[in-house]
Amino acid sequence: MRSVAEHRDAVLALVGPTPRETVPVGSALGRVLATDVTAVVDLPGFDNTAMDGYAVRHADLAGATEDAPVRLPVDGDIAAGDTTRHVLAPGHALRIMTGAPLPEGCDAVVPVEHTDGGAESVLVRVEPAPGRYVRARGEDVRTGDVVLRAGTALGPGHVALAAAANVPEVTVHRRPRVTVVSTGDELVPVGSMLEHGRIVDSNHLMLRALVEAAGAEVAAGVHLRDDADAVRAFLAAPDGDPDLVITSGGVSMGVYDTVKEVLTEVGGVEFVKVAMRPGMPQGCGVVGGGSGPAVVTLPGNPVSSFASFHVFVLPALRAMSGLDPDDDGSFEAEAGASWSSPREKVELTRVVEEDGVVRPSGGQGSHVLGALAEATAFALVPVGVERVEPGTRLRCLPILGHHRGRG
Amino acid sequence: MRSVAEHRDAVLALVGPTPRETVPVGSALGRVLATDVTAVVDLPGFDNTAMDGYAVRHADLAGATEDAPVRLPVDGDIAAGDTTRHVLAPGHALRIMTGAPLPEGCDAVVPVEHTDGGAESVLVRVEPAPGRYVRARGEDVRTGDVVLRAGTALGPGHVALAAAANVPEVTVHRRPRVTVVSTGDELVPVGSMLEHGRIVDSNHLMLRALVEAAGAEVAAGVHLRDDADAVRAFLAAPDGDPDLVITSGGVSMGVYDTVKEVLTEVGGVEFVKVAMRPGMPQGCGVVGGGSGPAVVTLPGNPVSSFASFHVFVLPALRAMSGLDPDDDGSFEAEAGASWSSPREKVELTRVVEEDGVVRPSGGQGSHVLGALAEATAFALVPVGVERVEPGTRLRCLPILGHHRGRG
Repeated sequence: MRSVAEHRDAVLALVGPTPRETVPVGSALGRVLATDVTAVVDLPGFDNTAMDGYAVRHADLAGATEDAPVRLPVDGDIAAGDTTRHVLAPGHALRIMTGAPLPEGCDAVVPVEHTDGGAESVLVRVEPAPGRYVRARGEDVRTGDVVLRAGTALGPGHVALAAAANVPEVTVHRRPRVTVVSTGDELVPVGSMLEHGRIVDSNHLMLRALVEAAGAEVAAGVHLRDDADAVRAFLAAPDGDPDLVITSGGVSMGVYDTVKEVLTEVGGVEFVKVAMRPGMPQGCGVVGGGSGPAVVTLPGNPVSSFASFHVFVLPALRAMSGLDPDDDGSFEAEAGASWSSPREKVELTRVVEEDGVVRPSGGQGSHVLGALAEATAFALVPVGVERVEPGTRLRCLPILGHHRGRG
Repeated sequence: MRSVAEHRDAVLALVGPTPRETVPVGSALGRVLATDVTAVVDLPGFDNTAMDGYAVRHADLAGATEDAPVRLPVDGDIAAGDTTRHVLAPGHALRIMTGAPLPEGCDAVVPVEHTDGGAESVLVRVEPAPGRYVRARGEDVRTGDVVLRAGTALGPGHVALAAAANVPEVTVHRRPRVTVVSTGDELVPVGSMLEHGRIVDSNHLMLRALVEAAGAEVAAGVHLRDDADAVRAFLAAPDGDPDLVITSGGVSMGVYDTVKEVLTEVGGVEFVKVAMRPGMPQGCGVVGGGSGPAVVTLPGNPVSSFASFHVFVLPALRAMSGLDPDDDGSFEAEAGASWSSPREKVELTRVVEEDGVVRPSGGQGSHVLGALAEATAFALVPVGVERVEPGTRLRCLPILGHHRGRG
């Protein structure tokens, strides 16, 4: 039996980063940088004031206090956005607004709170320190500085920094394109009348949602019946020009396991048993062994399919997006209950995590979706452990889109 | 000075849940349920097999072992999706595939691994326990059970469960619609030549990204100059028919703080100082005090605006989406360094969190975007603390879209 790590590596070996594309920085949320972002301007771009107040020379206010205030004539206002290069005359003040450029000759700012707020002249009640409330040009970022590194997944703060650095476009990896294939004669679309023996094709919608939640793109989605010709024809030229095809179902020990039957005949895809529960029957490869898209064949049980996606497909999507596949957000937590685990397999227990403690979320059968929907993480119980005891430290993998407290 | 909690409550008092709408379950990822979801079918919908193997009567295999296997005639196959109601004759077996309906009379399943896999007759090497490898109808979910509660933000597992329960559409809250307004004569679009005194309007792109990262919709986005007539006209009838308007800039102590000037004159919006750093100048209300959209006025410093969004706007968007505004994903962590904090204010320190330890991410000035982009959370240093020491436990608020290890 193959280990989880070995099969994960086999899947990762099939994929590489997607091609680069250039997008406006305002449309780059969630994308992953393919190149470093370099500042085009200094930040701040000019010496400016951190406070609303008065631009002064500090020496003109030597000894000013609450009891011995100093009055200076005010020669005018400098608003934020004022493009004039003002000059501060010795012994004078200019009224200045937050973010406005300092006038030449100014070396300090007095906040309006420490003055009488005058427009013609101003009574100042403190002696400002040189440089106080002054934001110096380039003190945050200098032109040519790398402000964001390749491999960064862009959040709102990254977008803000790139924009502030006057970078209008960024080079990112194209979103991975994934074609989702569910297989099985028993599957019918949601909302159908269910004949005896038929079930809803929930895997199809689930895998689409997982692909989207992972930040990738659903290139196409189909349901195929257990018909070898149809499966062979589709997988030879899958819809949607995908980077990756994921299938669910048809890979176990059954007589009608069409995906396995067809891909074994066509070649290029290896079917293996992986030492995990749920999710033992797995497969991956390139259809026909040529230059076609990579395919990962997931088991058909909903929970097995869901778990396998997290363990094998998600690292591949990360690598394709330009992210580190190992940077999976996993965390360590303490078991808050006792449960059994197969000695020879990694058990992916569906757990609810709260304040660093995890508890199984209900029935753990590979068809039990109720408990899966409640879970916030998979606890990975390693090979060799037959019983998790309260207090056992376990590595946990967050479930995509099931985080607490997120919209 | 108003406390952070008081201003948060004032903002929350302005908003309520958005109207409901019905969407296909396959398009509901990330949406928040407005009503409970009730199963339309049992799960499983019929007794079925958890394994590929043979449907049997357990009594027919009494005493079967590796050394004393029992042979049964095989009367045919039952594939997953077979809608025939098969009957198992006493003393016989039917070959059966994972997920296929059990024939009448069957009370156990023997996995193919414990047999010779025969098609005409099968040699069975174990005595199966009654009910073994049988998934009973309704053991996970029964028709009429509430499978998902109102207020659930739908992740892929929730989509799968609703679909499996044969629920084709769900009732969710409409995404909150937010109009984003940046103000200030100093602001120019990204990619412009920057004249002396001008800066890029990064807040505009940042606030749009924050709204999107929060799962809300940008209804419209504009930049307004410091022109009272333009600001007054826009805020009286904002573009995009929004549920909420957020502005940045123009709310401080300056002479050209147009947003504050106009909204004070028009009425309905209260401007206050909030005991936090960054982000002291805040405002919220309903323009003109009538039935117009709620407005939250954020300060213009990028970091102040970003922090204020997390502390005030995000809870409002959660409440509008149908989520608990308090369920903010905040967590407790330990300070891994020492830093100072204003005694009379909550300090929102930009920190990088790693394994439960937080460290400031760099310069903490309200204009310093570099450190903000690196940060993964805000550490909330409470009022009364002047110095954080290593080991201090701090409440931390995750930064939207800056999580580690997420695509």
